[in-house]
Amino acid sequence: MPELRKDPIIGRWVIIATDRAERPDQFISKPGGTPPEKPCPFCEGAESQTPKEVYALRPHNTQPNSPGWDLRVVPSIAPFLKIEGDLDRRGKGLYDIMNGVGAHEIVVETNQHIANMADLSDKQIAKVLKCYADRIIDLEKDKRFKYVLVFKNYGKSAGGGSIRHSRSQLIATPVNPKRVKEELTGSRRYFDYHERCIFCDLIHQEIKQKDRLILDLDGFIAISPFAARFPFETWILPKKHCCDFTSQDSESFKNLGKVLKTVLSKLKKGLNDPPFNYIIHTAPFRRAKIGYWKTIDQDYHWHIEIMPRLTRVAGFEWGTGFYICPIIPEDAAKFLRETEV
Amino acid sequence: MPELRKDPIIGRWVIIATDRAERPDQFISKPGGTPPEKPCPFCEGAESQTPKEVYALRPHNTQPNSPGWDLRVVPSIAPFLKIEGDLDRRGKGLYDIMNGVGAHEIVVETNQHIANMADLSDKQIAKVLKCYADRIIDLEKDKRFKYVLVFKNYGKSAGGGSIRHSRSQLIATPVNPKRVKEELTGSRRYFDYHERCIFCDLIHQEIKQKDRLILDLDGFIAISPFAARFPFETWILPKKHCCDFTSQDSESFKNLGKVLKTVLSKLKKGLNDPPFNYIIHTAPFRRAKIGYWKTIDQDYHWHIEIMPRLTRVAGFEWGTGFYICPIIPEDAAKFLRETEV
Repeated sequence: MPELRKDPIIGRWVIIATDRAERPDQFISKPGGTPPEKPCPFCEGAESQTPKEVYALRPHNTQPNSPGWDLRVVPSIAPFLKIEGDLDRRGKGLYDIMNGVGAHEIVVETNQHIANMADLSDKQIAKVLKCYADRIIDLEKDKRFKYVLVFKNYGKSAGGGSIRHSRSQLIATPVNPKRVKEELTGSRRYFDYHERCIFCDLIHQEIKQKDRLILDLDGFIAISPFAARFPFETWILPKKHCCDFTSQDSESFKNLGKVLKTVLSKLKKGLNDPPFNYIIHTAPFRRAKIGYWKTIDQDYHWHIEIMPRLTRVAGFEWGTGFYICPIIPEDAAKFLRETEV
Repeated sequence: MPELRKDPIIGRWVIIATDRAERPDQFISKPGGTPPEKPCPFCEGAESQTPKEVYALRPHNTQPNSPGWDLRVVPSIAPFLKIEGDLDRRGKGLYDIMNGVGAHEIVVETNQHIANMADLSDKQIAKVLKCYADRIIDLEKDKRFKYVLVFKNYGKSAGGGSIRHSRSQLIATPVNPKRVKEELTGSRRYFDYHERCIFCDLIHQEIKQKDRLILDLDGFIAISPFAARFPFETWILPKKHCCDFTSQDSESFKNLGKVLKTVLSKLKKGLNDPPFNYIIHTAPFRRAKIGYWKTIDQDYHWHIEIMPRLTRVAGFEWGTGFYICPIIPEDAAKFLRETEV
């Protein structure tokens, strides 16, 4: 069983991947090299190569785990967390530990062997986004879980592996990620003083000021954040206040599909298909449990953070939380704004 | 002038490197390749290739910026922060900004063209460590600064650049790094309840439990931390309680030199010379300012965190603060403990 261990000093939970743990000698540095490309397990017709699907968009006359689908969600073949078992939270001297219970799923975004999500249609991207919401709502029913992390690793240097088939991942966790807690605490602090959502104020200011605005389309904006950590870091935010990604209507998913396609296409065209990660930031499940229930609807605002992998992050940035961004966010925004797609 | 910008939601400061900022088109992905090795500016005899030294260990009969030195500190040729000017902290709508005032120095650890610090003598490493302390004490006199980050990037994929000459860096900052604040807050919380230092308790437990202990030598221990983020992450801690790295006596620096050499040699031998980063974690300068002055001496404990770069960190780990460690810390400790050097 994987373990979740808590850093006793700063309170960060870490998954210790005991089940898929490597032997120490697996980490001995070896000369590089590109492994030969294997047949893709995510293409239509290769359904037997993956674990059984937990969700699919497919015509009613097709069987699960057979061809004919449009989008599929399957459990990870090498999950970081295991779906069975109890949390069994316990101490070990001064340390805290619990069983690595959770879910780890792969969203296969297309039946075609297409690598970059930017090359899917906006309608297909909208289906992927709606699928995230459906899976989050389903996983929320499991009372052991507190949060679903939805993210994409595209390109080898972004952790995307060697198979070039567009997909994303969901990890349902029994703890709230540290960054999510910090966002909730920070936006709550602002709300307590101003009685306004900090993200709403930020959107208002960015639209007015324009210099960090990448696009303003169909109810969403894309911006270079003021204190960007990475070159061309981009946030997509809904202009209408809402804390919960899953509560969008179908029109909103359709529009978000168009906006996400536009932003990813700008990154692909402008920067020559760089590796990137994105993460959906949405409110945790049972807000009452963490003491935010009173005003969560007013003080948090869901959004997507996209991080191209153009510079190597030095270790001291992980170790200190202190980042150095080698480009001015306003210049990055201008470049992306002017990249025609 | 570089800028320091604060993320308004979670309160993280980011350096926007305006002066050395790249043009957006510099980030367009290009095919890789190894640049030809240039003559080393850090070797003895190349003193004119660096800015003028701010500190050196050299015989009295040698001139500054001439050969004969044993160790040199020079300002960075491409500093992230600038030494001149006022902070001029100000708002920009809801955002916070200040001038990127600070110091950025390079500690050239040897006059020989040696790449890995592990290959320096323990006496030379002790001199480097003492030099860190001397520079921190000197920079503390500048009332604009709150903290000195001391770190090493070794190897290209750890941000160490292409010049293979052993060196480390100091950045004096006008803000406390987020991680430092979190450590202070976390260890203070523990102290408030237990009236004991969490690090002292942790050291006690690790020595007793033994399974994460890498070495226990001359007043220091090296361990695999319980909730390690990275494979073979290693912390070195003084067994005697002390919050301040600079307040060690010469015997302690000598011993730490031996311990650091042993740990780095184990990593080099056991893992085939991997890239790594280390960071000195020590208490900030003017503790009263951040409200910790009453008990800082009792509740914080300086230490060194070493992070080999053996796995690529996926973007979602930056974006969520949620890490997945692909090896069991006890296995990593055993491997390093048993690696003879």
